[in-house]
Amino acid sequence: MSEDFHIKNILKRLEEKELDAMLVANFNNIYYLSNYISTSFAYLIIKENPIIFVSGMDLEHAKNDSTIDFVKFESFDNIIKCLKDEGISKLAIEADLTANVYEKFKDFDLKISDAIDVERMIKSDDEISKMKKAADIAHKSLIELDVRDKQEKGFQEWDCAYRLGYIMRENGANTESFDTIFASGATSRLPHSVPRHHVLETPVLVDYGCKFEGYCSDTTRTFLYSERQEEISNIVLEAHDKAIKAVKEGIKACEVDKVARDIISEYGYGDNFIHTTGHSLGLDIHERPTVALRDKTVLENNMVVTVEPGIYLEGEFGVRIEDMVLLDKKGKVIGNLPPVL
Amino acid sequence: MSEDFHIKNILKRLEEKELDAMLVANFNNIYYLSNYISTSFAYLIIKENPIIFVSGMDLEHAKNDSTIDFVKFESFDNIIKCLKDEGISKLAIEADLTANVYEKFKDFDLKISDAIDVERMIKSDDEISKMKKAADIAHKSLIELDVRDKQEKGFQEWDCAYRLGYIMRENGANTESFDTIFASGATSRLPHSVPRHHVLETPVLVDYGCKFEGYCSDTTRTFLYSERQEEISNIVLEAHDKAIKAVKEGIKACEVDKVARDIISEYGYGDNFIHTTGHSLGLDIHERPTVALRDKTVLENNMVVTVEPGIYLEGEFGVRIEDMVLLDKKGKVIGNLPPVL
Repeated sequence: MSEDFHIKNILKRLEEKELDAMLVANFNNIYYLSNYISTSFAYLIIKENPIIFVSGMDLEHAKNDSTIDFVKFESFDNIIKCLKDEGISKLAIEADLTANVYEKFKDFDLKISDAIDVERMIKSDDEISKMKKAADIAHKSLIELDVRDKQEKGFQEWDCAYRLGYIMRENGANTESFDTIFASGATSRLPHSVPRHHVLETPVLVDYGCKFEGYCSDTTRTFLYSERQEEISNIVLEAHDKAIKAVKEGIKACEVDKVARDIISEYGYGDNFIHTTGHSLGLDIHERPTVALRDKTVLENNMVVTVEPGIYLEGEFGVRIEDMVLLDKKGKVIGNLPPVL
Repeated sequence: MSEDFHIKNILKRLEEKELDAMLVANFNNIYYLSNYISTSFAYLIIKENPIIFVSGMDLEHAKNDSTIDFVKFESFDNIIKCLKDEGISKLAIEADLTANVYEKFKDFDLKISDAIDVERMIKSDDEISKMKKAADIAHKSLIELDVRDKQEKGFQEWDCAYRLGYIMRENGANTESFDTIFASGATSRLPHSVPRHHVLETPVLVDYGCKFEGYCSDTTRTFLYSERQEEISNIVLEAHDKAIKAVKEGIKACEVDKVARDIISEYGYGDNFIHTTGHSLGLDIHERPTVALRDKTVLENNMVVTVEPGIYLEGEFGVRIEDMVLLDKKGKVIGNLPPVL
C-alpha cells in the first residue's frame, strides 16, 4: 500500500464529514503519509494536492525522502493564505495538535478528525513484517540478557534496562520503542516505574520493546521467585491466554478487555488490575484501538493489539504478562517467547 | 524556593491578565509545581487552592510525592463542574495543551498563558546545582568514552551513542536528556541526524546530555581530523566564544544570536548556519527564552542558556560547538570541558 493510497482513503473520510482539508503536525502521521521524518517541525496539508511545509533545517531530509511535494515553512500566515486561496474553510486537525498551533488556525472551522488514526489501524503486510521483526529482535535480546543470571549476580535495574537496549541495537533495532521498565521487588507493583540505581529484588518485571524501521514491539515478562508470585502469575496468565483467544475479527475491543478483567475479578483481584488490557501499536507505541472497557471498536484482520493483564499488590509486588497479537483469521501471538520465563 | 512560592507568582501573573485559573497538563510543569511526576496523565488546576486530578494508575506516586492536594481523575465533566462551581470562567492554558483536551474546556474563555514558562526561566540555586551536576557527569562521561580511540578502532555511531549513555548512567545520571546525536562524516552536516549502524567517519559530531534529578545538560563537541575541518571549526569557535562573552544580564536573547550570526556571516557562511544560536533548558531540553533573532527576552541572572553555533556544508560535513552558559553576573560556561577535543 502506497502513501498515495492512504491519502485517498483519508480524503474520502474527510469528505464524508464535509471537511475540506486536514492539517497534520504529528511526525509519525507525516512519516506514514510521506515517508519523510521531520526532526524539528512540519505541517502537512492533506488536500487534493497535498503539500508539506517543512522547517529550513529539514529541507535535505525532505528532499531525500518525501513522496509528497514540500516547500520551506515561512510563516503560519503563509500556510493560512495558501489554504484560503484554495477556498478551504472546514479544516480537520489531529487530537494532539497543540494549542499554540490550534489558535493560529482559529479562523477556520476546526474539527478534530480521527481519519488518520483509523487509516493506521489496519497494518499493511510490510508494517506487520516490521513489527514481527521488532518483536523477534526484542525477544531474542531478552533471552540473551539472561535476567535470572543478572538477578543472581546483583545487577542494578538501570544497568539491566540499559544492557537490554544495547543488545536490542546489536541485534538490529533502531531504538527502544519506549523507556524500558525494569522493576523489581515492591516496585514492580507500579505499572510505569523508572529503572532505579538499585540491585534487582524479586520478582523482576520487564516491559520492553524496540523499533525496527520505525515500527514498535511491546512485550512484558515477569520473572517469578516465590510460590505467592507464581499463584498471582497463574491468574494473570489465565486472563492473558483467554483474552488472546478472544482476539478475533468481529469482536469489540471492550469485549476482549472484559474477558481479561472478568477472570481477574473472579479471583478477587479486580481492584488490583488498574489499567486497560491493551492497545494497538505501530509507528507509535499506543495507537487506536485501545483494549479498554470504553472502546467499542470492532477488531479487524491485520490489526495488531497488545494483551497485557496485570495484578498489582500494594506493599508486595506486581505481575504483568504482555504479548502482541496479530489479527489474522484468528488471534496470533507475535513471536514465540514463552509467557513465563 | 518552594513550589508554593511558584504558585503564588503564577497566580499573580494570571491576575494581571484577568485570568481566573490555569489548567496544567504538561508533566514537567506539574512536577515543577507539585514535585509529583505523572506517568500517565494528570490535570493540575492552579487557583487559590490548587488541586491535581491524577490518573488512578498514579495515585500511589501522587501520595508519595505531591505537595499539592490531589483527587482521582473521574471525568472531564467532573473537572469542569469543579471549576464552574468556583465561578471560574477565564481559564489560562499551556501552549502545548492538546486539541482533544482544549476542546473539552471550550465552554471557558481559554487563553494561552506563558505564566509557568516565565516562572521556569529563572533557576533556583537548587536547579542550577542539578544542571551543573548533570553537565559534570556528561562531560566526564564523554572523556571516558574516548571518541578518538573509538574512531580509530572502527566503532559504529549507534554503539558510541549507546556507550556514552551507559557511562553517563554509571556516573549517576538518570537518563539522557535527549537522544544522543553521534554523527560522523558527511552526516555531521545534518543538525539532527540519528546515530547509524555505520563505522565512524570524520569529523565526529557529538551532541549529548544527561538528566540529573530531572534537570538537563546539553553540550556539543566536534572532533576534527583535517585542516579544512579545523578552519571551519575556528570560525564556529569564534562565534561560540564571542556569543558567550555577550551573554550578560540585560542583553536581549536576539542580540546574542546576532553576535554569533554576524561572525559566521562575515566569513561568508551565514547561509550554512541553519538554526538558532541556542535555547534555555532545565527540566525540559528546550525552554524559554530561545537565543534566536525573533526572541526579544531580556536575559536575567540565574537563567541558563546554550550557545551552539554551527556551520553545515552540504556534501562535506558540519561543525557545531555548544556549551551551557549560566547568567551569574557575567556569562559563565558550565563545566570545564575544552571546546575542541
